Amino acid sequence: MKPILVFQTDFTYKEGAVAAMYGVVKSVDPTLEIIDATHEIPQYDTWSASFRLNQYMRFWPKGTIFVSVVDPGVGTKRRACVALTNDGYYIVTPDNGTLTHINATVGIREVREIDETINRLRRDDNKAVSIFHGRDLFGYCAARLASGIISFKEVGKTYPVSEIVTHEILKAQVRKDEIEGIFEINDPNFGNLWTNITLDDFSKLFKHGDMIHVTIRHKDEVVFAETVPYYASFGMAQDRSVMIYNNELNNIAMAQVVGNLCQAYGLGYGKDYHVIFKKAGK
Amino acid sequence: MKPILVFQTDFTYKEGAVAAMYGVVKSVDPTLEIIDATHEIPQYDTWSASFRLNQYMRFWPKGTIFVSVVDPGVGTKRRACVALTNDGYYIVTPDNGTLTHINATVGIREVREIDETINRLRRDDNKAVSIFHGRDLFGYCAARLASGIISFKEVGKTYPVSEIVTHEILKAQVRKDEIEGIFEINDPNFGNLWTNITLDDFSKLFKHGDMIHVTIRHKDEVVFAETVPYYASFGMAQDRSVMIYNNELNNIAMAQVVGNLCQAYGLGYGKDYHVIFKKAGK
Amino acid sequence: MKPILVFQTDFTYKEGAVAAMYGVVKSVDPTLEIIDATHEIPQYDTWSASFRLNQYMRFWPKGTIFVSVVDPGVGTKRRACVALTNDGYYIVTPDNGTLTHINATVGIREVREIDETINRLRRDDNKAVSIFHGRDLFGYCAARLASGIISFKEVGKTYPVSEIVTHEILKAQVRKDEIEGIFEINDPNFGNLWTNITLDDFSKLFKHGDMIHVTIRHKDEVVFAETVPYYASFGMAQDRSVMIYNNELNNIAMAQVVGNLCQAYGLGYGKDYHVIFKKAGK
Repeated sequence: MKPILVFQTDFTYKEGAVAAMYGVVKSVDPTLEIIDATHEIPQYDTWSASFRLNQYMRFWPKGTIFVSVVDPGVGTKRRACVALTNDGYYIVTPDNGTLTHINATVGIREVREIDETINRLRRDDNKAVSIFHGRDLFGYCAARLASGIISFKEVGKTYPVSEIVTHEILKAQVRKDEIEGIFEINDPNFGNLWTNITLDDFSKLFKHGDMIHVTIRHKDEVVFAETVPYYASFGMAQDRSVMIYNNELNNIAMAQVVGNLCQAYGLGYGKDYHVIFKKAGK
Repeated sequence: MKPILVFQTDFTYKEGAVAAMYGVVKSVDPTLEIIDATHEIPQYDTWSASFRLNQYMRFWPKGTIFVSVVDPGVGTKRRACVALTNDGYYIVTPDNGTLTHINATVGIREVREIDETINRLRRDDNKAVSIFHGRDLFGYCAARLASGIISFKEVGKTYPVSEIVTHEILKAQVRKDEIEGIFEINDPNFGNLWTNITLDDFSKLFKHGDMIHVTIRHKDEVVFAETVPYYASFGMAQDRSVMIYNNELNNIAMAQVVGNLCQAYGLGYGKDYHVIFKKAGK
Repeated sequence: MKPILVFQTDFTYKEGAVAAMYGVVKSVDPTLEIIDATHEIPQYDTWSASFRLNQYMRFWPKGTIFVSVVDPGVGTKRRACVALTNDGYYIVTPDNGTLTHINATVGIREVREIDETINRLRRDDNKAVSIFHGRDLFGYCAARLASGIISFKEVGKTYPVSEIVTHEILKAQVRKDEIEGIFEINDPNFGNLWTNITLDDFSKLFKHGDMIHVTIRHKDEVVFAETVPYYASFGMAQDRSVMIYNNELNNIAMAQVVGNLCQAYGLGYGKDYHVIFKKAGK
């Protein structure tokens, strides 16, 4: 059975770009299976692209080929690559930060720069086009790899894993009575915020049922300071109350139950959003 | 041929949850076919989840397995179940109101509570996670059922159909010269509003081409009072005019032609929106 | 191998319409492959439907069947048709302008009106429904064609290609020192604007690296007048600067780099948006 192709981009479905890209894949090999991971990565946001890959990749069958096209540098000298992870997946992507989290967690075994003389779609009607590598390069190359037309080696030459472009991943600080981290991303649909604090670290200080004092700072301003409970799941707290929980990636997160924490409190995520969890009453 | 898996959730595609859930399905059996019904059910809205299932289920091949994950009570004692309908479909869902309409229309033949000791995904990296049953329970169990790894009996123990959690479905009132009902849901894209009045009841008083006086009340306030036509389809009325029609489920609905009724008149749906259709001139 | 079915509509995934339509397809033949082109065509916008088809169709394998349902005239006498293009694709659509661009570019070889006595879904629960031809007519007929249940001839009777309903396509004007066109559509996700000026025409006056004076008029008002560069791709300009580029269809387009030109300058598209590119300093 041929590997599944799983796509994530920031294209949305508002116009025809995804359909053009998928047409190229099916023209390489109509038997390939294409599945959407998401086409709603925030525009140009390679941090989110990297984070989302790490959120879902390991749940797929080994050998699955992930194509990620969030590519603000399309047409520049940024590398186009295929990475093979230590746990046996392929990622076809611009090398622009999208490999940050996978590189830091499971690690990259080998990375190859796509040879555009071989693995780029050549047609009369696209030879002057420099702005759509999802269609002309990444989708096409991934389809050739999935179909067995090329091997991983035939993608192009290897380059050192140490040269992969990465974003900085900030670590949380565990202190005697408190833990400090940042909100590194959100759950945009439900308005939850996910910290960079691991369950392991958090569990050194806190357990389910604890009341915890939370201070959230945006730059130098305190924007939230309340004592809230830490529960295993949402149904244990009152609707519209704020709570702490362990998210699907075993990081500590915050939610407004059956609500939207981001909207209710005007909160966001990124390096400017610091959060401190402190034992209540201390 | 294995049954198709059709998914509906309130996750959206804004982040990686759907991709993680589908990865689990494909890891159980990579040959399973997954189709999106929708991932845009309004958040936490089990009424809409129930209504939408009833809107499309009967058009699928018998044996199709529907997975519905709108689950505000995830991690609480609400049951996780698989229902077999009288017309031969399976629905994998939290038992939280999502079965309301199917239970009231075609009926549930048998319902089983998912045995989490067998049909829950067990991994080192998800054992502490209580908030994502779409990935760890419903998707996984549905994939095992579709793949033939488990039979329906092996889902878990049956429980009485009478214990299924349901919302109240309001019935319309047919009177001598008028019919009164509610807007029970909308068509959010086009801004149409769908009543709980059946075509059969409506046809006792009205026929295509009739001019009908419509009064819409929101709580005690009249928010719409106009005489509008009843047509078979949209193209028969002027653009931007309001009309009555028979919707795809054979219920009476209202639209602003090539417009958006909800936006144009500030209307919504739910038990607080009453609508009365009365013969014009009476 | 059976042809792939590629769908575009203005239904969105906000409710159950797509799922009902796809259920009908799978009930005709569960082995058919369905792929979303998009369900986010702007509502009722047959111009966009036509444009998007032309954006992606030619990248698919020959024989692919495209189903386009943007159908403000559903239930009226507008024809429902299947067109065979000169390059070997099928398009199943209301004949309401959706074939405009394909007709003007590759051309239509033959068009047949769908015979509703044969190729319309007949069920007890849909016989009174006149407003959902995506489910009851287009999806059903396309599935029968893809499955081989009917041949192209069995769709229904041919009618003259000259009777196909089309929108007017405006041509750009090339003058001595300048080119004048319109913005004929946008790239709604990134906020780019696409003109009706071909790369061939543009290249008569301009080359990559040129600074070009751009005047945009909305009706009689000048809404943009700046000198901006023409580059092969986005990464060559400063973030947030405005530039000209050759889009994926070899038409000239404008973007705000890592930004959103439409939002930043309050611009839109359509026949009221004229753009003139003039050699800078002239």
